[in-house]
Amino acid sequence: MSKLLDNVCSELQRLPGIGRRTALRLAMHILKMEPEVVDSLSKSISSFRNDIQYCHSCNNLSDSTLCPICSDTSRDHSTICVVEQVQDLMSIENTGQYRGMYHVLGGVISPMQGIGPSDLKIDLLADKLLTGTVKEVIIAISTSVEGETTLFYLLNRLKAFPDVKISTIARGIGFGDELEYVDELTITHALMNRREVK
Amino acid sequence: MSKLLDNVCSELQRLPGIGRRTALRLAMHILKMEPEVVDSLSKSISSFRNDIQYCHSCNNLSDSTLCPICSDTSRDHSTICVVEQVQDLMSIENTGQYRGMYHVLGGVISPMQGIGPSDLKIDLLADKLLTGTVKEVIIAISTSVEGETTLFYLLNRLKAFPDVKISTIARGIGFGDELEYVDELTITHALMNRREVK
Repeated sequence: MSKLLDNVCSELQRLPGIGRRTALRLAMHILKMEPEVVDSLSKSISSFRNDIQYCHSCNNLSDSTLCPICSDTSRDHSTICVVEQVQDLMSIENTGQYRGMYHVLGGVISPMQGIGPSDLKIDLLADKLLTGTVKEVIIAISTSVEGETTLFYLLNRLKAFPDVKISTIARGIGFGDELEYVDELTITHALMNRREVK
Repeated sequence: MSKLLDNVCSELQRLPGIGRRTALRLAMHILKMEPEVVDSLSKSISSFRNDIQYCHSCNNLSDSTLCPICSDTSRDHSTICVVEQVQDLMSIENTGQYRGMYHVLGGVISPMQGIGPSDLKIDLLADKLLTGTVKEVIIAISTSVEGETTLFYLLNRLKAFPDVKISTIARGIGFGDELEYVDELTITHALMNRREVK
């Protein structure tokens, strides 16, 4: 087997969900692409890894020290939505309904994986609250055991700011979800948190 | 969204089977990889595309003008196995049972996709047969309509070499296949080509 082919296949297999067969299929596709297109693919990968920064204010991925959201003065800087990871921020941004700020923790507390509070950007959040401009913190982290641990830790830390309103996003039955297939815990919560309509 | 992230996601989406979500997942994984590892991934992609060659003798992917198989003098140069694509060659090589040469056609005749005999490396095969060293040609191309068309075209072209034995690989029920799920055409062929055991 060609060393170049062997090499590109091994390298591609470092990526998640890509096995030997998929790597080979990708390599064969790369071979059919224009050299300039392949060059721009290859360059985009290394420049992404080398040049990306984390926003100094919210820990979002950014091309500069301040991300486009933090530097947008037309947004509501008095509300911060706390998320686990950048993908979550993107999901919320995609709704186009939220105009506040974000804060990316960079994970959740997980003793099993050796992730403690100091590994997350919690101090950065506390620093932001010290400025006194923040009126509300919306916590939008997952409801896993680790997520709940992180939530309780955060609530404890945020006690230092009694004037800041703290909320968590609503849990309930998703739009389009069929009750038949929804887990018991979600249904229990949805029943408990029922809303009066009349 | 960060331009660098947006860029790497768009580029990754040029690859087959990679959509927006997968591209984002790959990008997030790339971010966690060591910069040197990402550099070597990125370099392996562009050098594969730019430096790979096709073996002048068998059209296999190669790092030089002659592939490792064609330049291996310990192999049987009197037998050539004709395959559609490099992946097929690899599958046969992986069995470790074949010690002859290969010839990679680079596809099959497909009028629907505008691929005619001249788009395949058939002349290169005929040139090799002209040398007189080849005793057998094993045709190992798929049994699709296009594959069968290519087979008939090849048989016709190879009539010019009456001394060369021509065979196709055996069709039948695969090891581990359950008869219940095998298609009728395969079963019909397997019955017709039954082997006497006693």
